[in-house]
Amino acid sequence: MSRLQEFEEFRSHINEKILSSDNKSIKRFFALDSEVYRDGALDTKTKEMLGLVASMVLRCDDCVTYHLIRCHEEGVSYDEFFEIFSIALVVGGSIVIPHLRRAVALMDELNSN
Amino acid sequence: MSRLQEFEEFRSHINEKILSSDNKSIKRFFALDSEVYRDGALDTKTKEMLGLVASMVLRCDDCVTYHLIRCHEEGVSYDEFFEIFSIALVVGGSIVIPHLRRAVALMDELNSN
Amino acid sequence: MSRLQEFEEFRSHINEKILSSDNKSIKRFFALDSEVYRDGALDTKTKEMLGLVASMVLRCDDCVTYHLIRCHEEGVSYDEFFEIFSIALVVGGSIVIPHLRRAVALMDELNSN
Amino acid sequence: MSRLQEFEEFRSHINEKILSSDNKSIKRFFALDSEVYRDGALDTKTKEMLGLVASMVLRCDDCVTYHLIRCHEEGVSYDEFFEIFSIALVVGGSIVIPHLRRAVALMDELNSN
Amino acid sequence: MSRLQEFEEFRSHINEKILSSDNKSIKRFFALDSEVYRDGALDTKTKEMLGLVASMVLRCDDCVTYHLIRCHEEGVSYDEFFEIFSIALVVGGSIVIPHLRRAVALMDELNSN
Amino acid sequence: MSRLQEFEEFRSHINEKILSSDNKSIKRFFALDSEVYRDGALDTKTKEMLGLVASMVLRCDDCVTYHLIRCHEEGVSYDEFFEIFSIALVVGGSIVIPHLRRAVALMDELNSN
Repeated sequence: MSRLQEFEEFRSHINEKILSSDNKSIKRFFALDSEVYRDGALDTKTKEMLGLVASMVLRCDDCVTYHLIRCHEEGVSYDEFFEIFSIALVVGGSIVIPHLRRAVALMDELNSN
Repeated sequence: MSRLQEFEEFRSHINEKILSSDNKSIKRFFALDSEVYRDGALDTKTKEMLGLVASMVLRCDDCVTYHLIRCHEEGVSYDEFFEIFSIALVVGGSIVIPHLRRAVALMDELNSN
Repeated sequence: MSRLQEFEEFRSHINEKILSSDNKSIKRFFALDSEVYRDGALDTKTKEMLGLVASMVLRCDDCVTYHLIRCHEEGVSYDEFFEIFSIALVVGGSIVIPHLRRAVALMDELNSN
Repeated sequence: MSRLQEFEEFRSHINEKILSSDNKSIKRFFALDSEVYRDGALDTKTKEMLGLVASMVLRCDDCVTYHLIRCHEEGVSYDEFFEIFSIALVVGGSIVIPHLRRAVALMDELNSN
Repeated sequence: MSRLQEFEEFRSHINEKILSSDNKSIKRFFALDSEVYRDGALDTKTKEMLGLVASMVLRCDDCVTYHLIRCHEEGVSYDEFFEIFSIALVVGGSIVIPHLRRAVALMDELNSN
Repeated sequence: MSRLQEFEEFRSHINEKILSSDNKSIKRFFALDSEVYRDGALDTKTKEMLGLVASMVLRCDDCVTYHLIRCHEEGVSYDEFFEIFSIALVVGGSIVIPHLRRAVALMDELNSN
């Protein structure tokens, strides 16, 4: 099983557990977390790029993985990805580099599928 | 060996190494790190919950693991855990979600022991 | 006008502006931000203390101000406040100290009212 | 002098001092910090929105001020701003709210000019 | 009263309040916070530079102010300061720039005394 | 293959990919990231220690690994390492401890080579 499949499996398995709890606030937060990336004044592609850059500067690998997959689905190109990365790098500094490396490795995995 | 056992083993093995160094400041910090969670004006259960929420919003997986185990020992209930998680989520945002997922997976492991 | 009054005035003035926009996600987030501190499995006092410690380690002055006022209203005592601060300090390190100083100054202002 | 003018004046005065030092690395960093927002595979408007959301989740007020002004110049609309803010809020959590408030206050100042 | 004097006055006034509380853990933390910068295997000048760079990347203005003053007392030169700043900038990214600006303004104030 | 070798291999493999892209800003950032640690007013040993403490308080494991190796090459002694760690711990708090543990484990690996 690839790293990508493991990520997807763990994610959906545990999300199910979380959403089957009785805690309404957490469910509402998860709903909100989908809602803000939907087409509006800005289209989904732009919003997913915003989600990606925010995840990179906050150095959240799982968030980067998720938004990288979504950006890929929305047609973000190789050059566009690297321009997003360059902004993340300049804003967030060299501590972003390890996450950049893992993002580039994931792009390869996505492109080879 | 389970993830929990590995965590405990690595933790105690390396803590020993650290505390056998000559650096007194590090030893004092470690002593302080135990001291602040002891019963006082606030009881240990409340303090461990404070430690857990602080660890979640700072997104420190090992710290979350440690305080989750301690909270479990102090009798924090399933519903109480999810209310702590909901506060961590709202304060710290969606970047807390990956840590929430790992916390929920650990709760399962703790409850199945 | 005291620092406390200025804070309250700016806060309620701008919140009104934000909530009068058409953005439903932001409104839902604000609703969620009130909801998670309500009595549940944990009482409001405990939840406000969780909000306070999370705000301190994340070093958000306005959030500290807000939760400090709420904790004060919920009857958190002087000794309890200092135990919360000691946990924030140990978890978050010396970079928390400037926020601790401003919190202590605010406690004085609250107690002299 | 408005808050906006003070910001601009201090910023350009000190930038001059910094760039008149002999430190070449800092000058190169400043050059890079302009370069990454220029038109490329992504246009400047999109890049400035990326800079804004990154600044908000990292809670850097001066950076938010700078990118908000630039986004305004690039024609980001009121609804677009609020959608950027909603993503920042969900990704970064309630600790982003104080920065959101100051951003909304600044938008008013920009629109009244 | 200059910004520097205000900083010193507020700092010593509130530290006194904090240290006059009964909370021993906080007092121990403050003692530790002095202790780690004392001459040891590394000299105080090096340690204060470590404190300065750590404060800058964590974007804590009061901490930067404190360690900048201490570094100045320990004889850190203009060129050395800018090399510390360049490392902070590259490691921490453009979000460090506002703190760099305030540090440079403070250096001027220190040098004109 | 040891953890150290894996780290080196992945790092150089992906760095090559990144630097073979057409994105000039990222290449410039990587150049800058080497440049700031070169001998200048401060020597490389001091600069690598600055890089290490900054990486620890920002809790970036790969960055800690990199600067720990470089500090080791520059002759940082066991006692000096622990004094750097004690500053990182006091500035950054107990959330630094998991990174301290991994750093100490890596020191052992470096010393046994």
